Amino acid sequence: MNKPLTLVLCALCMALSLSAFSQKVNEADSLTIRNLYDMALLNGQSYDWLDHLSNEIGGRLSGSLEAERAVQYTKEELDKLGLDRVWLQPVMVPKWTRGFKEYAYVETAPGITKTVNVCALGGSVATSSLGVKAEIIEVQGIEDLKEYGKEQIEGKIVFYNRPMEANLISTFEAYGGCVDQRYAGAMEAAKYGAVGVVVRSMNLRQDDFPHTGSMSYGEAPVKSRIPACAISTNDADYLSKALGFKPDLKFYFKQSCKVYNDVQSYNVIGEITGSVYPNKYMIVGGHLDSWDLGDGSHDDGAGCVQSMEVLRLFKKINYTPRHSIRVVLFMNEENGLRGGRKYAEEAKLKQEQHLFALESDAGGFTPRGFSFDTDAANFAQVESWKPLFKPYLIHYFEKGGSGADIGPLKDGTVVLSGLRPDSQRYFDHHHAENDTFDAVNKRELELGGATMASLVYLFDKYGTKSTAIPVKK
Amino acid sequence: MNKPLTLVLCALCMALSLSAFSQKVNEADSLTIRNLYDMALLNGQSYDWLDHLSNEIGGRLSGSLEAERAVQYTKEELDKLGLDRVWLQPVMVPKWTRGFKEYAYVETAPGITKTVNVCALGGSVATSSLGVKAEIIEVQGIEDLKEYGKEQIEGKIVFYNRPMEANLISTFEAYGGCVDQRYAGAMEAAKYGAVGVVVRSMNLRQDDFPHTGSMSYGEAPVKSRIPACAISTNDADYLSKALGFKPDLKFYFKQSCKVYNDVQSYNVIGEITGSVYPNKYMIVGGHLDSWDLGDGSHDDGAGCVQSMEVLRLFKKINYTPRHSIRVVLFMNEENGLRGGRKYAEEAKLKQEQHLFALESDAGGFTPRGFSFDTDAANFAQVESWKPLFKPYLIHYFEKGGSGADIGPLKDGTVVLSGLRPDSQRYFDHHHAENDTFDAVNKRELELGGATMASLVYLFDKYGTKSTAIPVKK
Repeated sequence: MNKPLTLVLCALCMALSLSAFSQKVNEADSLTIRNLYDMALLNGQSYDWLDHLSNEIGGRLSGSLEAERAVQYTKEELDKLGLDRVWLQPVMVPKWTRGFKEYAYVETAPGITKTVNVCALGGSVATSSLGVKAEIIEVQGIEDLKEYGKEQIEGKIVFYNRPMEANLISTFEAYGGCVDQRYAGAMEAAKYGAVGVVVRSMNLRQDDFPHTGSMSYGEAPVKSRIPACAISTNDADYLSKALGFKPDLKFYFKQSCKVYNDVQSYNVIGEITGSVYPNKYMIVGGHLDSWDLGDGSHDDGAGCVQSMEVLRLFKKINYTPRHSIRVVLFMNEENGLRGGRKYAEEAKLKQEQHLFALESDAGGFTPRGFSFDTDAANFAQVESWKPLFKPYLIHYFEKGGSGADIGPLKDGTVVLSGLRPDSQRYFDHHHAENDTFDAVNKRELELGGATMASLVYLFDKYGTKSTAIPVKK
Repeated sequence: MNKPLTLVLCALCMALSLSAFSQKVNEADSLTIRNLYDMALLNGQSYDWLDHLSNEIGGRLSGSLEAERAVQYTKEELDKLGLDRVWLQPVMVPKWTRGFKEYAYVETAPGITKTVNVCALGGSVATSSLGVKAEIIEVQGIEDLKEYGKEQIEGKIVFYNRPMEANLISTFEAYGGCVDQRYAGAMEAAKYGAVGVVVRSMNLRQDDFPHTGSMSYGEAPVKSRIPACAISTNDADYLSKALGFKPDLKFYFKQSCKVYNDVQSYNVIGEITGSVYPNKYMIVGGHLDSWDLGDGSHDDGAGCVQSMEVLRLFKKINYTPRHSIRVVLFMNEENGLRGGRKYAEEAKLKQEQHLFALESDAGGFTPRGFSFDTDAANFAQVESWKPLFKPYLIHYFEKGGSGADIGPLKDGTVVLSGLRPDSQRYFDHHHAENDTFDAVNKRELELGGATMASLVYLFDKYGTKSTAIPVKK
């Protein structure tokens, strides 16, 4: 093809794309989105809500007093917003408690010890009241166990020390490449006769905080379950180096965690009933439970207050949604996902058609965009909205996962999405003592809520592709 | 035009764009950029350099001992990198010192005082040794002075309290909308007989840190110069509210800052001499001086160590630049810009042709992209590189400013660019006591250095548009 003709054709196409562009970036949408951001940044409430959740209530592990206080507080706050309905959805949740603060040391010679920072993994059994003390074997992952075999592992503590890969840009991808050690490390090591497990904290930074998180013994009988703890990255490196000098050093740890019978808790739900489609639902949520070490500000107090803020912003700018829009604060994402499952079960039971679900569970950092679990047609519609987000530096629209709590809603038609904030600092705080309110920046948190509200607004106005609603221009 | 024809034309154009795309995203470029990021994230040195600059040396105000130590330290570190040349470029800089810690209070009734957090603005004169005490008049900006006139201002302290606009997405834009109060507030208020000036800190957050920064008296005679200080945002709000109750309250502040004769300092420069075009220059830099309250980690220790890292990365991945690539650590950006001017003067004097200059002076936060001060042809070339940056979530490529230090190089041909990190937290720390090393995240800092190196690599390989170099495929 010759060059002038190419240029003409390109010019034509550009003109066509531009007309498509101006169709999508219609002024009403631009203005509504501007209003949402202005309201969030100038008169936001999410930061104050998070302050209360974090500093007045604190870590909200399922089954704890704090979790129940958080249920009561967020329901009361939703009650103040003038929504059409606010209610609690009962759900039975597991109850695991950490007990006394864990204690651990490395003994390089009899009586010569160095204390190290550990914490029990969520769901771990306790050690005996005297603790566990044994030689330690360092591995780079579960796959190494087979190589060492029972003869080298039996009677020892297995130390999983594969670090997160620092050269991955997405820290979630780096986390995904390591977390099997934490989740299944004890279950697997027990098969080789290990007496305990120490896992390098899922943290890209060198520091002294051990990071907890869920683990599973699978179907292993209770008596074969071995205690498991996480060790801070600094101490993991110390331990590894010490083993280089002294392979027969001893490791000691003591923890007194305990599993109780399931207890009743709640998902907290608020709804603005749809003006056109009251029986079609779009939801936005986060999880109200958190680990117990910090106050759960980033994981996932931030997602909860941002989700509450979405509905508050709609009320404040006098937007009347066409569909029923719900905020759902899920209980028990961290160690059971009972809230997410319960919500989906009830929705199915009541034949509530869910068109769109958005979760924020990746920290209250500067929002970059969204990932989508949906089909090509719905994704194409989302891509056509990108220009509307450009003034807010929201650029990331990719296919991928959404959020754990909304996953059970997946049925082939509902569009699932997850807010994707900047991920660089997330694992510095994730599941650790320093997941605290001071690590959340007010503006970053508010930008996330406004970004979520904008996406919910667009889905509400234009519908999802299988159920698109004609819009008056 | 009918629809099928449109579709055919669009398909054609898409095919053409895709071929252009695959041309630009050639594998060699992708791989080189991947190498740069891997090296920065797995074996970066910028964080350690910054640790030393911040924690071993500290705030580096022009003319201070710390500034001289920073010159010596960074030269020594550049000497270790195996560059072709490392040298110091002498430059005379102003010397202003803060003196004793400032003290201020609000007196609502005789003897009833509340201490507030202030700091002298950079370049301000001292108060008398007894301090200044006067009634205060709150204004929203310089333009209000005329309205109040001499009769309401004379003998009083003017309190500039216009806040940064929180609903602007770019905090730099919000800063730009306020900083005239700090820069020219004293000069203007003196014309109406004011005896001092208090300026609300340029900070979007509510906290207790006063933020310093440069100010000017213009050509005003020395005896007419009035002292000026910044007040923390929390205390600015307190003062404003107190004035609501008690319009005739008194404000007291005392500061002992002093201006000395200019002293000699240096720009620190390192160079990898170009293999093809040794006499054509591309530079990357930040400013080595900082304000004195914090340790200047974000402003602009980060930019210095990222710039040093660019050259280190090139050496580490064995990249041989075609042009001469320089790192320039400019002295005296904060209160004089003497280093930037000196560098440009000497470049002109020596007829050194500069093709490209990149500055990092917006904090060590997650990089989002670059702004460019250049023509359409060069900007179009940059835009064609966007796909290469996508895996690293670098998405912001816009026309706009570059950096203060490289500004004097502007001659209509050199392409000027500024790194644009996420700006949300920048002004929480800017020019304040909490601009410290702990506020910098290692990964965010390293991502910035790798992103800068990638852009310098592309400009080096493909040249700038007026001087494009044919590249062997």
